[in-house]
Amino acid sequence: MSIQQQIHDSEAVKNITAKEALFVIKIGGNIIDDATKLQNFLHHFSEIPGKKILIHGGGKLATQLAKDLGIEQEMVEGRRITDAATLKIVTMVYAGYINKNIVAQLQSNGSNAIGFTGADANLIRAHKRLPSASKGIDYGFVGDVDEVNTAAIEPLLSQNISIVIAPITHDGKGQLLNTNADTIAQSIATAMGSKYDVSLLYCFEKNGVLLDANDDNSVIATINPSYFIKLKEEQLIFAGMIPKLENAFAALEKGVGKVIIGKAESILDLVKAKAGTTIQIN
Amino acid sequence: MSIQQQIHDSEAVKNITAKEALFVIKIGGNIIDDATKLQNFLHHFSEIPGKKILIHGGGKLATQLAKDLGIEQEMVEGRRITDAATLKIVTMVYAGYINKNIVAQLQSNGSNAIGFTGADANLIRAHKRLPSASKGIDYGFVGDVDEVNTAAIEPLLSQNISIVIAPITHDGKGQLLNTNADTIAQSIATAMGSKYDVSLLYCFEKNGVLLDANDDNSVIATINPSYFIKLKEEQLIFAGMIPKLENAFAALEKGVGKVIIGKAESILDLVKAKAGTTIQIN
Repeated sequence: MSIQQQIHDSEAVKNITAKEALFVIKIGGNIIDDATKLQNFLHHFSEIPGKKILIHGGGKLATQLAKDLGIEQEMVEGRRITDAATLKIVTMVYAGYINKNIVAQLQSNGSNAIGFTGADANLIRAHKRLPSASKGIDYGFVGDVDEVNTAAIEPLLSQNISIVIAPITHDGKGQLLNTNADTIAQSIATAMGSKYDVSLLYCFEKNGVLLDANDDNSVIATINPSYFIKLKEEQLIFAGMIPKLENAFAALEKGVGKVIIGKAESILDLVKAKAGTTIQIN
Repeated sequence: MSIQQQIHDSEAVKNITAKEALFVIKIGGNIIDDATKLQNFLHHFSEIPGKKILIHGGGKLATQLAKDLGIEQEMVEGRRITDAATLKIVTMVYAGYINKNIVAQLQSNGSNAIGFTGADANLIRAHKRLPSASKGIDYGFVGDVDEVNTAAIEPLLSQNISIVIAPITHDGKGQLLNTNADTIAQSIATAMGSKYDVSLLYCFEKNGVLLDANDDNSVIATINPSYFIKLKEEQLIFAGMIPKLENAFAALEKGVGKVIIGKAESILDLVKAKAGTTIQIN
Protein backbone atom coordinates (compact mmCIF):
# COMPACT_ATOMS: atom_id res chain seq x y z
CA MET A 1 0.00 0.00 0.00
CA SER A 2 1.32 3.43 -0.91
CA ILE A 3 1.86 6.08 1.74
CA GLN A 4 -0.77 8.24 0.01
CA GLN A 5 -3.22 5.36 0.23
CA GLN A 6 -2.43 4.85 3.91
CA ILE A 7 -2.95 8.57 4.62
CA HIS A 8 -6.17 8.51 2.63
CA ASP A 9 -7.44 5.49 4.55
CA SER A 10 -6.50 6.96 7.93
CA GLU A 11 -8.32 10.22 7.01
CA ALA A 12 -11.36 8.19 5.99
CA VAL A 13 -11.34 6.37 9.33
CA LYS A 14 -10.94 9.71 11.13
CA ASN A 15 -13.97 11.09 9.27
CA ILE A 16 -16.04 8.12 10.31
CA THR A 17 -14.90 7.89 13.92
CA ALA A 18 -14.38 11.54 14.89
CA LYS A 19 -17.43 13.60 14.03
CA GLU A 20 -17.43 17.01 15.70
CA ALA A 21 -19.32 17.26 18.99
CA LEU A 22 -22.66 19.09 19.12
CA PHE A 23 -24.69 19.69 22.28
CA VAL A 24 -28.46 19.94 21.89
CA ILE A 25 -29.77 21.20 25.21
CA LYS A 26 -33.38 21.59 26.28
CA ILE A 27 -34.37 23.78 29.23
CA GLY A 28 -37.83 23.87 30.71
CA GLY A 29 -40.12 26.27 32.49
CA ASN A 30 -38.60 26.02 35.96
CA ILE A 31 -35.41 27.70 34.69
CA ILE A 32 -37.16 30.22 32.46
CA ASP A 33 -39.48 31.40 35.23
CA ASP A 34 -36.58 32.21 37.56
CA ALA A 35 -34.50 35.18 36.31
CA THR A 36 -31.49 34.36 38.50
CA LYS A 37 -31.49 30.65 37.61
CA LEU A 38 -31.80 31.53 33.91
CA GLN A 39 -28.95 34.04 34.13
CA ASN A 40 -26.70 31.48 35.84
CA PHE A 41 -27.64 28.80 33.35
CA LEU A 42 -26.86 31.04 30.35
CA HIS A 43 -23.54 32.00 31.93
CA HIS A 44 -22.65 28.29 32.19
CA PHE A 45 -24.04 27.56 28.72
CA SER A 46 -21.65 30.19 27.33
CA GLU A 47 -18.73 28.31 28.88
CA ILE A 48 -19.49 25.04 27.06
CA PRO A 49 -16.92 24.80 24.27
CA GLY A 50 -17.86 24.06 20.67
CA LYS A 51 -21.17 23.82 18.84
CA LYS A 52 -24.42 24.29 20.77
CA ILE A 53 -28.16 24.40 20.20
CA LEU A 54 -30.52 25.51 22.99
CA ILE A 55 -34.24 24.71 22.91
CA HIS A 56 -36.37 26.51 25.45
CA GLY A 57 -39.88 25.83 26.65
CA GLY A 58 -42.42 28.41 27.64
CA GLY A 59 -42.69 28.73 31.39
CA LYS A 60 -45.56 30.31 33.24
CA LEU A 61 -45.38 33.68 31.48
CA ALA A 62 -47.74 32.62 28.67
CA THR A 63 -50.31 31.29 31.17
CA GLN A 64 -50.04 34.53 33.17
CA LEU A 65 -50.40 36.71 30.06
CA ALA A 66 -53.50 34.75 28.97
CA LYS A 67 -54.94 35.25 32.47
CA ASP A 68 -54.15 38.99 32.44
CA LEU A 69 -55.90 39.29 29.07
CA GLY A 70 -58.89 37.27 30.26
CA ILE A 71 -58.29 34.56 27.66
CA GLU A 72 -59.52 31.29 29.07
CA GLN A 73 -57.11 28.37 28.79
CA GLU A 74 -58.80 25.10 28.01
CA MET A 75 -56.98 22.01 29.23
CA VAL A 76 -57.73 18.46 28.04
CA GLU A 77 -55.96 15.58 29.80
CA GLY A 78 -53.47 18.05 31.26
CA ARG A 79 -52.61 19.56 27.89
CA ARG A 80 -53.37 23.06 26.71
CA ILE A 81 -55.66 23.60 23.73
CA THR A 82 -54.05 26.18 21.41
CA ASP A 83 -56.85 28.30 19.97
CA ALA A 84 -56.05 31.35 17.80
CA ALA A 85 -55.78 33.73 20.78
CA THR A 86 -53.50 31.30 22.63
CA LEU A 87 -51.29 30.82 19.56
CA LYS A 88 -50.85 34.60 19.41
CA ILE A 89 -49.84 34.62 23.07
CA VAL A 90 -47.33 31.76 22.84
CA THR A 91 -45.82 33.26 19.67
CA MET A 92 -45.35 36.59 21.47
CA VAL A 93 -43.99 35.06 24.67
CA TYR A 94 -41.87 32.17 23.35
CA ALA A 95 -40.53 33.61 20.06
CA GLY A 96 -40.48 37.24 21.24
CA TYR A 97 -39.91 37.83 24.93
CA ILE A 98 -38.16 34.62 26.07
CA ASN A 99 -36.16 33.89 22.91
CA LYS A 100 -34.80 37.43 22.45
CA ASN A 101 -33.94 37.88 26.12
CA ILE A 102 -31.99 34.60 26.06
CA VAL A 103 -30.13 35.71 22.91
CA ALA A 104 -29.32 39.14 24.40
CA GLN A 105 -28.04 37.53 27.61
CA LEU A 106 -25.86 35.07 25.68
CA GLN A 107 -24.39 38.00 23.73
CA SER A 108 -23.58 39.72 27.04
CA ASN A 109 -21.69 36.56 28.04
CA GLY A 110 -19.59 36.83 24.88
CA SER A 111 -21.43 33.91 23.29
CA ASN A 112 -22.70 34.69 19.80
CA ALA A 113 -26.24 33.36 19.35
CA ILE A 114 -29.22 33.65 17.04
CA GLY A 115 -32.88 33.01 17.80
CA PHE A 116 -35.02 30.74 15.65
CA THR A 117 -38.52 29.43 15.33
CA GLY A 118 -39.31 26.61 12.93
CA ALA A 119 -40.44 29.21 10.37
CA ASP A 120 -37.04 30.95 10.28
CA ALA A 121 -35.03 29.70 7.32
CA ASN A 122 -37.67 26.95 7.18
CA LEU A 123 -35.90 25.11 10.02
CA ILE A 124 -38.82 22.96 11.20
CA ARG A 125 -41.78 22.08 9.04
CA ALA A 126 -44.80 20.65 10.88
CA HIS A 127 -48.46 19.89 10.29
CA LYS A 128 -51.47 20.81 12.39
CA ARG A 129 -52.34 17.79 14.52
CA LEU A 130 -55.51 16.14 13.27
CA PRO A 131 -58.15 15.19 15.87
CA SER A 132 -58.00 11.70 14.35
CA ALA A 133 -54.37 11.45 15.52
CA SER A 134 -55.20 12.40 19.11
CA LYS A 135 -58.18 10.38 20.32
CA GLY A 136 -60.59 12.77 18.61
CA ILE A 137 -59.34 15.75 20.63
CA ASP A 138 -58.84 18.95 18.62
CA TYR A 139 -55.71 20.50 20.15
CA GLY A 140 -56.04 23.53 17.86
CA PHE A 141 -52.91 25.13 16.44
CA VAL A 142 -50.55 22.40 17.67
CA GLY A 143 -47.90 21.15 15.28
CA ASP A 144 -46.39 17.69 14.88
CA VAL A 145 -42.91 17.82 13.34
CA ASP A 146 -42.53 16.57 9.76
CA GLU A 147 -39.05 17.67 8.78
CA VAL A 148 -35.93 19.41 10.10
CA ASN A 149 -33.98 21.37 7.52
CA THR A 150 -30.43 21.12 8.89
CA ALA A 151 -29.05 23.31 6.09
CA ALA A 152 -30.80 26.25 7.76
CA ILE A 153 -28.45 26.20 10.74
CA GLU A 154 -25.28 24.38 9.65
CA PRO A 155 -23.56 27.48 8.17
CA LEU A 156 -24.28 29.35 11.43
CA LEU A 157 -23.02 26.52 13.65
CA SER A 158 -19.85 26.32 11.61
CA GLN A 159 -19.25 29.99 12.50
CA ASN A 160 -19.68 28.96 16.17
CA ILE A 161 -22.96 30.82 16.48
CA SER A 162 -25.26 29.07 18.96
CA ILE A 163 -28.83 28.45 17.84
CA VAL A 164 -31.64 29.27 20.32
CA ILE A 165 -34.95 27.66 19.32
CA ALA A 166 -38.42 28.70 20.52
CA PRO A 167 -41.06 25.91 20.40
CA ILE A 168 -43.01 27.39 17.47
CA THR A 169 -43.03 25.69 14.05
CA HIS A 170 -44.81 26.39 10.75
CA ASP A 171 -46.69 24.38 8.14
CA GLY A 172 -45.21 26.02 5.03
CA LYS A 173 -48.60 27.53 4.23
CA GLY A 174 -48.18 30.57 6.45
CA GLN A 175 -49.52 29.00 9.64
CA LEU A 176 -47.44 29.08 12.83
CA LEU A 177 -47.95 26.11 15.18
CA ASN A 178 -47.32 25.55 18.89
CA THR A 179 -45.00 22.54 19.26
CA ASN A 180 -43.72 20.62 22.28
CA ALA A 181 -40.16 21.69 23.14
CA ASP A 182 -39.05 18.14 24.14
CA THR A 183 -40.14 16.89 20.72
CA ILE A 184 -38.30 19.72 18.96
CA ALA A 185 -35.13 18.91 20.92
CA GLN A 186 -35.36 15.26 19.89
CA SER A 187 -36.11 16.09 16.23
CA ILE A 188 -33.21 18.54 16.03
CA ALA A 189 -30.79 16.13 17.74
CA THR A 190 -31.80 13.27 15.45
CA ALA A 191 -31.51 15.37 12.29
CA MET A 192 -28.05 16.66 13.26
CA GLY A 193 -26.84 13.13 14.07
CA SER A 194 -25.66 12.35 10.57
CA LYS A 195 -23.12 15.17 10.60
CA TYR A 196 -22.27 15.65 14.28
CA ASP A 197 -21.57 13.55 17.34
CA VAL A 198 -24.72 14.74 19.12
CA SER A 199 -25.31 14.77 22.86
CA LEU A 200 -28.92 15.50 23.72
CA LEU A 201 -29.34 16.97 27.21
CA TYR A 202 -32.73 17.33 28.88
CA CYS A 203 -32.46 19.75 31.79
CA PHE A 204 -35.18 19.67 34.42
CA GLU A 205 -35.61 20.30 38.16
CA LYS A 206 -34.24 16.94 39.40
CA ASN A 207 -30.66 15.69 39.49
CA GLY A 208 -31.50 12.94 37.00
CA VAL A 209 -33.69 9.84 36.82
CA LEU A 210 -34.19 8.90 40.47
CA LEU A 211 -34.49 5.42 41.99
CA ASP A 212 -36.47 7.03 44.80
CA ALA A 213 -38.58 9.97 43.65
CA ASN A 214 -38.30 11.51 47.12
CA ASP A 215 -34.52 11.28 47.31
CA ASP A 216 -32.70 13.68 44.99
CA ASN A 217 -29.45 11.82 45.70
CA SER A 218 -30.72 8.50 44.30
CA VAL A 219 -29.70 9.35 40.74
CA ILE A 220 -29.35 6.37 38.41
CA ALA A 221 -26.03 6.88 36.59
CA THR A 222 -26.85 4.97 33.42
CA ILE A 223 -29.90 3.28 31.96
CA ASN A 224 -29.76 0.88 29.04
CA PRO A 225 -32.77 -0.91 27.47
CA SER A 226 -32.60 -4.04 29.66
CA TYR A 227 -32.25 -1.99 32.88
CA PHE A 228 -35.17 0.19 31.66
CA ILE A 229 -37.36 -2.92 31.36
CA LYS A 230 -36.31 -3.99 34.88
CA LEU A 231 -37.06 -0.51 36.31
CA LYS A 232 -40.48 -0.53 34.70
CA GLU A 233 -41.25 -4.05 35.93
CA GLU A 234 -40.24 -3.14 39.48
CA GLN A 235 -42.22 0.11 39.17
CA LEU A 236 -39.17 2.10 40.29
CA ILE A 237 -39.61 4.92 37.81
CA PHE A 238 -42.63 7.20 37.92
CA ALA A 239 -45.17 7.48 35.11
CA GLY A 240 -44.05 10.82 33.59
CA MET A 241 -40.50 9.55 33.15
CA ILE A 242 -41.42 6.54 31.00
CA PRO A 243 -42.30 8.47 27.79
CA LYS A 244 -39.22 10.67 28.31
CA LEU A 245 -36.99 7.59 28.43
CA GLU A 246 -38.76 5.97 25.50
CA ASN A 247 -38.07 9.18 23.53
CA ALA A 248 -34.44 9.03 24.62
CA PHE A 249 -34.05 5.45 23.36
CA ALA A 250 -35.75 6.41 20.09
CA ALA A 251 -33.28 9.29 19.64
CA LEU A 252 -30.31 6.96 20.30
CA GLU A 253 -31.63 4.45 17.80
CA LYS A 254 -31.90 7.23 15.20
CA GLY A 255 -28.23 8.18 15.53
CA VAL A 256 -27.97 10.52 18.52
CA GLY A 257 -24.73 9.68 20.30
CA LYS A 258 -25.76 10.24 23.89
CA VAL A 259 -28.82 11.32 25.89
CA ILE A 260 -28.42 12.76 29.38
CA ILE A 261 -31.19 13.83 31.76
CA GLY A 262 -30.26 16.09 34.67
CA LYS A 263 -30.45 19.39 36.50
CA ALA A 264 -29.95 22.67 34.63
CA GLU A 265 -27.76 24.00 37.44
CA SER A 266 -25.31 21.13 36.74
CA ILE A 267 -25.07 21.78 33.01
CA LEU A 268 -21.23 21.98 33.03
CA ASP A 269 -21.09 18.53 34.64
CA LEU A 270 -23.86 17.17 32.40
CA VAL A 271 -21.92 18.00 29.23
CA LYS A 272 -19.01 15.94 30.59
CA ALA A 273 -21.43 13.15 31.61
CA LYS A 274 -20.24 13.68 35.19
CA ALA A 275 -23.76 14.23 36.51
CA GLY A 276 -27.31 13.24 35.64
CA THR A 277 -28.52 10.02 34.10
CA THR A 278 -26.94 8.83 30.87
CA ILE A 279 -29.25 6.87 28.60
CA GLN A 280 -27.49 4.41 26.36
CA ILE A 281 -28.35 1.61 23.98
CA ASN A 282 -25.10 -0.34 24.14
CA MET B 1 -0.97 42.47 -22.61
CA SER B 2 -1.73 38.77 -22.28
CA ILE B 3 -5.27 37.46 -22.69
CA GLN B 4 -5.17 36.32 -19.04
CA GLN B 5 -4.23 39.82 -17.96
CA GLN B 6 -7.03 41.34 -20.04
CA ILE B 7 -9.55 38.93 -18.51
CA HIS B 8 -8.20 39.68 -15.05
CA ASP B 9 -8.49 43.43 -15.60
CA SER B 10 -11.98 43.20 -17.04
CA GLU B 11 -13.06 41.10 -14.02
CA ALA B 12 -11.54 43.70 -11.68
CA VAL B 13 -13.44 46.49 -13.46
CA LYS B 14 -16.62 44.42 -13.23
CA ASN B 15 -16.10 43.99 -9.50
CA ILE B 16 -15.73 47.73 -9.03
CA THR B 17 -18.54 48.87 -11.27
CA ALA B 18 -21.17 46.19 -10.83
CA LYS B 19 -21.87 45.50 -7.18
CA GLU B 20 -24.80 43.16 -6.68
CA ALA B 21 -28.17 44.81 -6.05
CA LEU B 22 -29.67 44.73 -2.54
CA PHE B 23 -33.10 46.09 -1.62
CA VAL B 24 -33.54 47.36 1.93
CA ILE B 25 -37.28 47.89 2.37
CA LYS B 26 -39.05 49.45 5.33
CA ILE B 27 -42.77 48.97 5.91
CA GLY B 28 -44.75 50.84 8.51
CA GLY B 29 -47.78 50.36 10.69
CA ASN B 30 -50.47 51.01 8.10
CA ILE B 31 -49.47 47.83 6.23
CA ILE B 32 -48.90 45.72 9.34
CA ASP B 33 -52.29 46.59 10.84
CA ASP B 34 -54.14 45.41 7.74
CA ALA B 35 -53.92 41.61 7.24
CA THR B 36 -54.95 41.72 3.57
CA LYS B 37 -52.59 44.58 2.70
CA LEU B 38 -49.74 42.79 4.50
CA GLN B 39 -50.47 39.52 2.71
CA ASN B 40 -50.48 41.28 -0.69
CA PHE B 41 -47.30 43.16 0.15
CA LEU B 42 -45.47 39.96 1.18
CA HIS B 43 -46.66 38.25 -1.98
CA HIS B 44 -45.15 41.10 -4.04
CA PHE B 45 -42.02 41.19 -1.87
CA SER B 46 -41.46 37.51 -2.69
CA GLU B 47 -41.49 38.36 -6.40
CA ILE B 48 -38.64 40.86 -6.14
CA PRO B 49 -35.61 39.08 -7.56
CA GLY B 50 -32.28 38.94 -5.73
CA LYS B 51 -31.15 39.99 -2.26
CA LYS B 52 -33.66 41.60 0.10
CA ILE B 53 -33.90 42.91 3.65
CA LEU B 54 -37.27 43.86 5.15
CA ILE B 55 -37.54 46.11 8.22
CA HIS B 56 -40.96 46.31 9.82
CA GLY B 57 -42.37 48.77 12.31
CA GLY B 58 -44.80 47.97 15.05
CA GLY B 59 -48.32 48.99 14.12
CA LYS B 60 -51.19 49.48 16.54
CA LEU B 61 -51.02 45.98 18.05
CA ALA B 62 -48.52 46.99 20.76
CA THR B 63 -50.65 49.98 21.77
CA GLN B 64 -53.73 47.75 21.87
CA LEU B 65 -51.98 45.07 23.95
CA ALA B 66 -50.76 47.71 26.44
CA LYS B 67 -54.34 49.01 26.69
CA ASP B 68 -55.74 45.50 27.19
CA LEU B 69 -53.22 44.91 29.97
CA GLY B 70 -53.96 48.28 31.57
CA ILE B 71 -50.40 49.49 31.07
CA GLU B 72 -50.50 53.23 30.64
CA GLN B 73 -48.55 54.58 27.69
CA GLU B 74 -46.77 57.84 28.42
CA MET B 75 -46.22 60.05 25.40
CA VAL B 76 -43.81 63.00 25.36
CA GLU B 77 -43.83 65.27 22.32
CA GLY B 78 -45.69 62.59 20.36
CA ARG B 79 -43.18 59.86 21.20
CA ARG B 80 -43.76 56.84 23.38
CA ILE B 81 -41.77 56.40 26.59
CA THR B 82 -40.50 52.80 26.75
CA ASP B 83 -40.65 51.74 30.39
CA ALA B 84 -39.87 48.12 31.38
CA ALA B 85 -43.47 46.93 30.88
CA THR B 86 -43.67 48.62 27.48
CA LEU B 87 -40.33 47.10 26.40
CA LYS B 88 -41.73 43.67 27.25
CA ILE B 89 -44.81 44.39 25.13
CA VAL B 90 -42.91 45.67 22.08
CA THR B 91 -40.46 42.75 22.29
CA MET B 92 -43.37 40.30 22.32
CA VAL B 93 -45.32 42.04 19.55
CA TYR B 94 -42.52 43.16 17.20
CA ALA B 95 -39.98 40.33 17.58
CA GLY B 96 -42.55 37.62 18.30
CA TYR B 97 -45.95 38.04 16.72
CA ILE B 98 -45.28 40.37 13.78
CA ASN B 99 -41.81 39.13 12.85
CA LYS B 100 -42.66 35.42 12.91
CA ASN B 101 -45.94 35.82 11.05
CA ILE B 102 -44.13 37.76 8.31
CA VAL B 103 -41.47 35.04 8.06
CA ALA B 104 -44.09 32.25 7.93
CA GLN B 105 -46.01 34.10 5.20
CA LEU B 106 -42.86 34.64 3.15
CA GLN B 107 -42.12 30.90 3.43
CA SER B 108 -45.62 30.15 2.15
CA ASN B 109 -44.82 32.36 -0.87
CA GLY B 110 -41.75 30.23 -1.56
CA SER B 111 -39.43 32.98 -0.33
CA ASN B 112 -36.91 31.73 2.21
CA ALA B 113 -36.60 34.22 5.08
CA ILE B 114 -35.22 34.52 8.59
CA GLY B 115 -36.29 36.87 11.37
CA PHE B 116 -33.82 39.01 13.27
CA THR B 117 -33.64 41.52 16.07
CA GLY B 118 -30.45 43.48 16.68
CA ALA B 119 -29.50 40.94 19.36
CA ASP B 120 -29.53 37.99 16.95
CA ALA B 121 -26.00 37.25 15.76
CA ASN B 122 -25.20 40.67 17.28
CA LEU B 123 -26.60 42.37 14.17
CA ILE B 124 -27.28 45.82 15.67
CA ARG B 125 -25.54 47.14 18.75
CA ALA B 126 -27.13 50.22 20.33
CA HIS B 127 -26.96 52.23 23.55
CA LYS B 128 -29.77 53.41 25.78
CA ARG B 129 -30.54 57.00 24.87
CA LEU B 130 -29.32 59.34 27.59
CA PRO B 131 -31.71 62.10 28.76
CA SER B 132 -28.84 64.52 28.03
CA ALA B 133 -29.09 63.53 24.35
CA SER B 134 -32.84 64.20 24.17
CA LYS B 135 -33.61 67.60 25.78
CA GLY B 136 -33.56 66.07 29.27
CA ILE B 137 -36.37 63.63 28.40
CA ASP B 138 -35.85 60.07 29.64
CA TYR B 139 -37.29 57.92 26.86
CA GLY B 140 -36.59 54.77 28.87
CA PHE B 141 -35.44 51.63 27.07
CA VAL B 142 -34.94 53.32 23.70
CA GLY B 143 -31.80 52.50 21.77
CA ASP B 144 -29.72 54.67 19.45
CA VAL B 145 -27.75 52.58 16.95
CA ASP B 146 -23.97 52.35 17.42
CA GLU B 147 -22.94 49.62 15.02
CA VAL B 148 -24.26 47.24 12.37
CA ASN B 149 -22.45 43.91 12.12
CA THR B 150 -22.92 43.07 8.45
CA ALA B 151 -21.10 39.73 8.85
CA ALA B 152 -24.16 38.51 10.78
CA ILE B 153 -26.34 38.51 7.66
CA GLU B 154 -24.00 38.35 4.66
CA PRO B 155 -23.70 34.51 4.60
CA LEU B 156 -27.51 34.27 4.74
CA LEU B 157 -28.05 36.85 1.98
CA SER B 158 -25.56 35.02 -0.20
CA GLN B 159 -27.81 31.93 0.15
CA ASN B 160 -30.70 34.16 -1.06
CA ILE B 161 -32.37 34.07 2.33
CA SER B 162 -34.24 37.33 2.97
CA ILE B 163 -33.65 39.03 6.33
CA VAL B 164 -36.70 40.30 8.25
CA ILE B 165 -35.75 42.75 11.00
CA ALA B 166 -37.90 43.74 13.99
CA PRO B 167 -37.11 47.18 15.49
CA ILE B 168 -35.50 45.83 18.67
CA THR B 169 -31.76 46.19 19.31
CA HIS B 170 -29.44 45.31 22.22
CA ASP B 171 -26.63 46.99 24.13
CA GLY B 172 -24.30 43.98 24.38
CA LYS B 173 -24.85 43.89 28.14
CA GLY B 174 -28.04 41.83 28.00
CA GLN B 175 -30.46 44.74 27.61
CA LEU B 176 -32.92 44.81 24.71
CA LEU B 177 -33.82 48.29 23.41
CA ASN B 178 -36.77 49.68 21.43
CA THR B 179 -35.38 51.36 18.29
CA ASN B 180 -36.99 53.42 15.53
CA ALA B 181 -37.55 51.26 12.41
CA ASP B 182 -36.73 54.11 9.98
CA THR B 183 -33.37 54.53 11.70
CA ILE B 184 -32.68 50.80 11.56
CA ALA B 185 -33.47 50.76 7.83
CA GLN B 186 -31.07 53.63 7.23
CA SER B 187 -28.32 52.07 9.39
CA ILE B 188 -28.63 48.69 7.66
CA ALA B 189 -28.69 50.26 4.18
CA THR B 190 -25.64 52.37 4.94
CA ALA B 191 -23.68 49.47 6.42
CA MET B 192 -24.43 47.22 3.44
CA GLY B 193 -23.44 49.94 0.94
CA SER B 194 -19.77 48.98 0.84
CA LYS B 195 -20.54 45.53 -0.52
CA TYR B 196 -23.85 45.92 -2.35
CA ASP B 197 -25.53 48.38 -4.66
CA VAL B 198 -28.20 49.28 -2.10
CA SER B 199 -31.63 50.69 -2.84
CA LEU B 200 -33.37 51.89 0.32
CA LEU B 201 -37.17 51.93 -0.02
CA TYR B 202 -39.41 53.60 2.52
CA CYS B 203 -42.97 52.37 2.08
CA PHE B 204 -45.77 54.44 3.58
CA GLU B 205 -49.43 55.28 2.90
CA LYS B 206 -48.85 57.95 0.21
CA ASN B 207 -47.75 57.49 -3.39
CA GLY B 208 -44.52 59.39 -2.68
CA VAL B 209 -43.44 62.88 -1.66
CA LEU B 210 -46.36 65.06 -2.74
CA LEU B 211 -46.28 68.62 -4.09
CA ASP B 212 -49.82 69.01 -2.76
CA ALA B 213 -50.44 67.02 0.44
CA ASN B 214 -54.12 66.70 -0.51
CA ASP B 215 -53.49 65.36 -4.01
CA ASP B 216 -52.10 61.81 -4.07
CA ASN B 217 -51.34 62.24 -7.77
CA SER B 218 -48.96 65.16 -7.23
CA VAL B 219 -45.96 62.86 -6.66
CA ILE B 220 -42.57 64.50 -7.14
CA ALA B 221 -40.57 62.07 -9.30
CA THR B 222 -37.08 63.01 -8.12
CA ILE B 223 -35.64 65.27 -5.46
CA ASN B 224 -32.02 66.34 -5.38
CA PRO B 225 -30.41 68.61 -2.75
CA SER B 226 -30.99 71.89 -4.62
CA TYR B 227 -34.64 71.02 -5.34
CA PHE B 228 -35.03 70.03 -1.68
CA ILE B 229 -33.85 73.51 -0.62
CA LYS B 230 -36.31 75.08 -3.05
CA LEU B 231 -39.21 72.92 -1.78
CA LYS B 232 -38.39 73.89 1.78
CA GLU B 233 -38.12 77.60 0.92
CA GLU B 234 -41.47 77.52 -0.86
CA GLN B 235 -42.95 75.49 2.03
CA LEU B 236 -44.26 72.90 -0.41
CA ILE B 237 -43.33 69.86 1.70
CA PHE B 238 -44.91 69.25 5.06
CA ALA B 239 -43.02 69.22 8.34
CA GLY B 240 -42.87 65.44 8.92
CA MET B 241 -41.29 64.84 5.51
CA ILE B 242 -38.27 67.13 6.08
CA PRO B 243 -36.42 64.84 8.56
CA LYS B 244 -37.25 61.82 6.35
CA LEU B 245 -35.64 63.53 3.36
CA GLU B 246 -32.67 64.72 5.40
CA ASN B 247 -32.16 61.09 6.47
CA ALA B 248 -32.41 59.99 2.84
CA PHE B 249 -29.71 62.48 1.78
CA ALA B 250 -27.53 61.35 4.69
CA ALA B 251 -27.89 57.71 3.56
CA LEU B 252 -26.95 58.61 -0.03
CA GLU B 253 -23.89 60.52 1.18
CA LYS B 254 -22.82 57.45 3.18
CA GLY B 255 -22.86 55.18 0.12
CA VAL B 256 -26.46 54.04 -0.37
CA GLY B 257 -27.08 53.93 -4.12
CA LYS B 258 -30.69 55.05 -4.23
CA VAL B 259 -33.49 56.08 -1.84
CA ILE B 260 -37.11 55.81 -2.91
CA ILE B 261 -40.19 56.83 -0.91
CA GLY B 262 -43.55 55.46 -1.99
CA LYS B 263 -46.61 53.33 -1.41
CA ALA B 264 -46.26 49.74 -0.18
CA GLU B 265 -48.92 48.58 -2.66
CA SER B 266 -46.63 49.75 -5.50
CA ILE B 267 -43.55 47.88 -4.24
CA LEU B 268 -42.94 46.10 -7.56
CA ASP B 269 -42.88 49.48 -9.34
CA LEU B 270 -40.83 51.10 -6.57
CA VAL B 271 -38.02 48.56 -6.95
CA LYS B 272 -37.82 49.50 -10.64
CA ALA B 273 -37.97 53.23 -9.72
CA LYS B 274 -41.16 53.41 -11.83
CA ALA B 275 -43.21 54.84 -8.95
CA GLY B 276 -42.67 56.92 -5.83
CA THR B 277 -40.15 59.67 -5.28
CA THR B 278 -36.49 58.97 -5.96
CA ILE B 279 -34.07 60.91 -3.77
CA GLN B 280 -30.70 61.52 -5.37
CA ILE B 281 -27.56 63.51 -4.69
CA ASN B 282 -26.29 63.85 -8.24
